[in-house]
Amino acid sequence: MAQNIYDNPEFFAGYSQLSRQVHGLDGAPEWPAIRAMLPVLSGKRVVDLGCGFGWASRWMREQGAARVLGFDLSENMVRRAIADTRDTAVEYRIADLETLELPRASFDLAYSALAFHYIRDFNRLARMVHAALVPGGDFVFTIEHPVFMAAAHPHWIADEDGRRTWPVNGYSIEGERWTDWFAKGVVKYHRTIGTTLNTLIGAGFDIAHVEEFAPSPEQIEQAPALAEELERPMMLLVSARRKPATGEAVA
Amino acid sequence: MAQNIYDNPEFFAGYSQLSRQVHGLDGAPEWPAIRAMLPVLSGKRVVDLGCGFGWASRWMREQGAARVLGFDLSENMVRRAIADTRDTAVEYRIADLETLELPRASFDLAYSALAFHYIRDFNRLARMVHAALVPGGDFVFTIEHPVFMAAAHPHWIADEDGRRTWPVNGYSIEGERWTDWFAKGVVKYHRTIGTTLNTLIGAGFDIAHVEEFAPSPEQIEQAPALAEELERPMMLLVSARRKPATGEAVA
Repeated sequence: MAQNIYDNPEFFAGYSQLSRQVHGLDGAPEWPAIRAMLPVLSGKRVVDLGCGFGWASRWMREQGAARVLGFDLSENMVRRAIADTRDTAVEYRIADLETLELPRASFDLAYSALAFHYIRDFNRLARMVHAALVPGGDFVFTIEHPVFMAAAHPHWIADEDGRRTWPVNGYSIEGERWTDWFAKGVVKYHRTIGTTLNTLIGAGFDIAHVEEFAPSPEQIEQAPALAEELERPMMLLVSARRKPATGEAVA
Repeated sequence: MAQNIYDNPEFFAGYSQLSRQVHGLDGAPEWPAIRAMLPVLSGKRVVDLGCGFGWASRWMREQGAARVLGFDLSENMVRRAIADTRDTAVEYRIADLETLELPRASFDLAYSALAFHYIRDFNRLARMVHAALVPGGDFVFTIEHPVFMAAAHPHWIADEDGRRTWPVNGYSIEGERWTDWFAKGVVKYHRTIGTTLNTLIGAGFDIAHVEEFAPSPEQIEQAPALAEELERPMMLLVSARRKPATGEAVA
């Protein structure tokens, strides 16, 4: 079972104060880049893996999705998502993405924001999502960028000119990374970009778009602190498409 | 026109002493990983973009390629490639990859090792290679990894535990990077992984495999200095496949 840090009271209290939790999607600087990668949502059946407070699930329904099913490991998150949602076409369930099984060919879009770097077995997950999507279905997700999470001590340093610099070590050594983030001992799983993409390809996806989030000049003008995100890649955004199996027609 | 640093005498003298130039393919630790990404070569028409001394061109011919055409900007490199090759099915020409044009649908494989990070316009190159390949043709290349070349001062540093650490800054700021490598003022072009992959997808390629070279335990046992390459990604290896245009059959 995945570590359920979100139901640690200390973690949850801190996490709930993040701009993206208080202000929802507009509090996440990468949201415009994600939006640009999403397919047309009208009529789509969507699964939201790691739905948190349900911000994206509700937004997708507002964009015309026929049905949105959100899963999260955290009871705290799912309770609040249910409390904040007045739409019977949006449903939330508690589930561990390490073991979740979905019905076959039941979704047009699988979406996930900043959840999969908590998952040990991404290969199992990618194959499960592939089976749950219809042929031609989309898989759009974000994770912490492996460059952001590889190092033993992932924090800003200065180079010889005093420029903000991000340290990288252990990049090719995949597996657990322990960090203190709102609580002590949060465990994440480091995988190279190569591994993430090859796992998707091996599971039967075509890679459609890969983006390493960087703030736009307009975003930096409005929030100058974002400029530091030009120095390091913090998030990896991936869009993939489920290939039809041999003999399958694309929906 | 691309900078022709290879015909700078100082650069060429230093460069020619590199293990991969003295010992050929076996002097390059990433070669086994590249080999594993190459298609069956028997009967294939191959173009080698940035062929250098011709080590890979000759090897591919020995593996059964029907014809190999190597291009390099450097007269020094092409002269030596010609002098070292006794096979009329392997041909070398001086050309600038920034402007090179190839006949349409004439090759089964386009190969390139550590050349494209010297190219300013990768989009033009990717579209030209796409047109030069037959539908279903392979495009396998290596470049310096963007994490390796992003920073203003790309050299090893130590973290607070004294561990070898690679600095990253300016990752999202693409464009020229000036370094001193055997000669002063070698210019390279930094692109994010996202840009490289999206450029290929936009040109009509499917991404088949993405690898961030890491030495194997056996390689480290034989050459312990290689262990540092577990800390940082130094090279990016990409395999892509030319999609058939609408109505085109795959060869």
